[in-house]
Amino acid sequence: MEFTAQEIAQLLGGTVKGNPNDKISSVSKIQEGKPGTIAFLANPKYEEFIYSTRATAVLVNEDFKPTKPLKTSLIYVKDAYVAFSSLLEEYQRIVSLQKVGIEEPSFRDGSAEIGESPYIGAFAYLGKNVKVGNNCKIYPHVYLGDNVTVGDNTILYAGVKVYADCTIGSYCTIHSGAVVGSDGFGFAPQADGTYKTIPQIGNVIIEDHVDIGANTVIDCATMGSTHIKKGVKLDNLVQIAHNVTIGENTVVAAQTGISGSATLGKNNVLAGQVGIVGHIVLPDRTTIGAQSGIMNPPKEEGKILLGSPALEHKNQLRSLAIFRRLPDIKKRIEKLEAKLLNSEDQ
Amino acid sequence: MEFTAQEIAQLLGGTVKGNPNDKISSVSKIQEGKPGTIAFLANPKYEEFIYSTRATAVLVNEDFKPTKPLKTSLIYVKDAYVAFSSLLEEYQRIVSLQKVGIEEPSFRDGSAEIGESPYIGAFAYLGKNVKVGNNCKIYPHVYLGDNVTVGDNTILYAGVKVYADCTIGSYCTIHSGAVVGSDGFGFAPQADGTYKTIPQIGNVIIEDHVDIGANTVIDCATMGSTHIKKGVKLDNLVQIAHNVTIGENTVVAAQTGISGSATLGKNNVLAGQVGIVGHIVLPDRTTIGAQSGIMNPPKEEGKILLGSPALEHKNQLRSLAIFRRLPDIKKRIEKLEAKLLNSEDQ
Amino acid sequence: MEFTAQEIAQLLGGTVKGNPNDKISSVSKIQEGKPGTIAFLANPKYEEFIYSTRATAVLVNEDFKPTKPLKTSLIYVKDAYVAFSSLLEEYQRIVSLQKVGIEEPSFRDGSAEIGESPYIGAFAYLGKNVKVGNNCKIYPHVYLGDNVTVGDNTILYAGVKVYADCTIGSYCTIHSGAVVGSDGFGFAPQADGTYKTIPQIGNVIIEDHVDIGANTVIDCATMGSTHIKKGVKLDNLVQIAHNVTIGENTVVAAQTGISGSATLGKNNVLAGQVGIVGHIVLPDRTTIGAQSGIMNPPKEEGKILLGSPALEHKNQLRSLAIFRRLPDIKKRIEKLEAKLLNSEDQ
Repeated sequence: MEFTAQEIAQLLGGTVKGNPNDKISSVSKIQEGKPGTIAFLANPKYEEFIYSTRATAVLVNEDFKPTKPLKTSLIYVKDAYVAFSSLLEEYQRIVSLQKVGIEEPSFRDGSAEIGESPYIGAFAYLGKNVKVGNNCKIYPHVYLGDNVTVGDNTILYAGVKVYADCTIGSYCTIHSGAVVGSDGFGFAPQADGTYKTIPQIGNVIIEDHVDIGANTVIDCATMGSTHIKKGVKLDNLVQIAHNVTIGENTVVAAQTGISGSATLGKNNVLAGQVGIVGHIVLPDRTTIGAQSGIMNPPKEEGKILLGSPALEHKNQLRSLAIFRRLPDIKKRIEKLEAKLLNSEDQ
Repeated sequence: MEFTAQEIAQLLGGTVKGNPNDKISSVSKIQEGKPGTIAFLANPKYEEFIYSTRATAVLVNEDFKPTKPLKTSLIYVKDAYVAFSSLLEEYQRIVSLQKVGIEEPSFRDGSAEIGESPYIGAFAYLGKNVKVGNNCKIYPHVYLGDNVTVGDNTILYAGVKVYADCTIGSYCTIHSGAVVGSDGFGFAPQADGTYKTIPQIGNVIIEDHVDIGANTVIDCATMGSTHIKKGVKLDNLVQIAHNVTIGENTVVAAQTGISGSATLGKNNVLAGQVGIVGHIVLPDRTTIGAQSGIMNPPKEEGKILLGSPALEHKNQLRSLAIFRRLPDIKKRIEKLEAKLLNSEDQ
Repeated sequence: MEFTAQEIAQLLGGTVKGNPNDKISSVSKIQEGKPGTIAFLANPKYEEFIYSTRATAVLVNEDFKPTKPLKTSLIYVKDAYVAFSSLLEEYQRIVSLQKVGIEEPSFRDGSAEIGESPYIGAFAYLGKNVKVGNNCKIYPHVYLGDNVTVGDNTILYAGVKVYADCTIGSYCTIHSGAVVGSDGFGFAPQADGTYKTIPQIGNVIIEDHVDIGANTVIDCATMGSTHIKKGVKLDNLVQIAHNVTIGENTVVAAQTGISGSATLGKNNVLAGQVGIVGHIVLPDRTTIGAQSGIMNPPKEEGKILLGSPALEHKNQLRSLAIFRRLPDIKKRIEKLEAKLLNSEDQ
């Protein structure tokens, strides 16, 4: 794809100063600009780069006044950061629209229903009674087990696996290698030391506007549903166990694990490598620091937790500050002991 | 599938009170019961729900006496919990039996041998000299490298990858995205700071009745075998390095990692996100708490370990209790110092 | 494959003592030797095993003098350990050479270019403008998105997924289930508590001689490139976030996570389950212990870090030693308090 500076200015409601016929085919950072790309300048501390950038054009705020000669064209817009972000979205939308059609060989059971304008990649598998909504992108090597439903405008990247009976909403994005609906980890210990597998016959329900990272796993419920609510964002390599509920707009960073039957409220923010024990309830708007372990969550909303086991953030930091000085603390005790106990009872 | 209440009662050796012709096609929790489902009541504290449940039928213990009017049919059995569990197993068995046959396109090398009643999904790959036992389910996108053997009644879900020369036992279940037999992480440092890859030519042996979670990885041995013994249960996203041995009936929760050449005994229980260093021996019946790091395991069996680095559970909890109060400890020392040292040598 | 003892001796520049026509088809450890295999003896403390091993032949150093009768043939070489290692490499090379050709069905867009002597497994997918170098092995179920380039002599094992526009160097090995180029985890919080996805339009550049473990994930850059430099070795289940740079010959063990925009220097060694926060710079030759959390890396090269949050190794160990004895520390303070404060102000 290639656009002129003028076409981009029109798209963004801006005006060109420079050559309106400049050809632009990609985007760049202003400090790494290359010919044929467009960059942006919003933060004044990057102004210096605009005089040396090799980008063909730069988006700038309406009030920008160059103080040195420029080699690049300018596109004046109301808010250069917002305009650049719109441009990225538009770029991604156009790239995404290019994937349309059904590649062969793919496997679509006769009972599967596919909406309008689909992309179905080669080697994708759609089982019995699968329903895929409109404008979905089902990349190569995706597996949709029997009775899976996928809403409109959802993208499943290469190699996503969805077990039978699971439901995925609209405007979701699931990245490569993610697994939805694998068996919960449930085993009943037997008298002889072996374990009997507890049947896992529930499913996973993923609501609208959910993003799921690469190689993340969401287990099905033992009975009922593991439930990922509207607007949840899961990063890569996250583990969601059976019967977990994650509330709206909760964000979970990479390699975090949520144990069975835990219920997370809305608008939580979990950093990476966090562990949450099973059967707990996490209130809304809780923030959890990286590598924390949550066993006894607070009852109140809006707390910041840190550490394994986690304490409130400020308390954890206070204890950690002293932990680092424990050798000194020990010496001070020894000194006190020498003073006080030496000549008496030691 | 649809059954009558009478058919279910016969299967479980129970008796119907209500309409024996009620149609039942799924199961539910009593508090979430829907028409067309069967639930159970075992724990008296859930009794209230039986009077309002919308489930079509409820399994109850022989001695259950309703104290209010019921809208649901009852099926009296000796032990409602056990009966419900049997029902789930039967349900899962029937669902699983429905998958039979060979879907196309799949890739089966001419030298591959497949037992009776197989399910081979579309896009499954069976390399040279692969042997698959009777009643196996090989889902779509499974990869079995050359010389892999799979025992009877084993299920490999969509996208499982097994490298050449590995062996999988009977009655195993391996979930989507799990990788068996990838190279061990072995590199010899060179004088110039680069690393030379150490050839990894061993395999993985998985014995009978082993369950492996989604996206878990088990590396092959450098030489010889990485060995997962009978009855081991591994959760999702677990890392098992080269030359590890895991003893019978050991259970490993999600995101735990076992480093190279570690030997784990029998009947251990490892919680989630645990790390075990290489070349150690873990005695039988050890329990390890979540996020623990094991460097120096005890010699005795049956210990409970916690923390990173791990201590015996009780000792770790005692130190942690004081860690939380370190700011107070520090103040007490300062008070002692003020008393004792102030007027003397400070 | 089968070789005679004489053929192996010739390959390694050694001499046979015993039957030069012995047939050898595999390798073994001396203490686990089986007929038809070759083992080695380098460390004198294993000498005892050479008198009982069932291996058909054993590689020994030139100066080895047996002190008891032998059942096995010997192959005398200059350095038995080095010779055995060469043998393993040769064995692996020969096994690897056996995979050549294009299996069907595979998907190769008309614009894809494939070098000489390729292996393209069944169900592999090569999108538009994909370029694969000479002597590459692309195993079954590999996905190469549009415009991906792969250098010479690179191996992508079954199920590797590479998103559009990413670049992979020569002599790389990527293991099953690894994902290269998934979207960075970037979301802009909105006033109503929802998140807007920030478009991720960058790519991943992987230089030469990089090894990547099974189910590891490397996100693309928001703009520009996530950059894995020459000679980097990543273990299994590692998370590399958007815009990370990893310097030459840095080694990262399993389940470690590197957050967005972090820059790691050269020749670092990161143990397993480490977490690195975003936007930091890690100097060259840093060593990080398992399960550590790095928030404030040192400025100096060559440090050893440990703990979460990490301290310099020795300081962390000193504090941990006292942490373990905190109950004793507390008692000593109580004793001091009893002495000093009892009769005064308490």
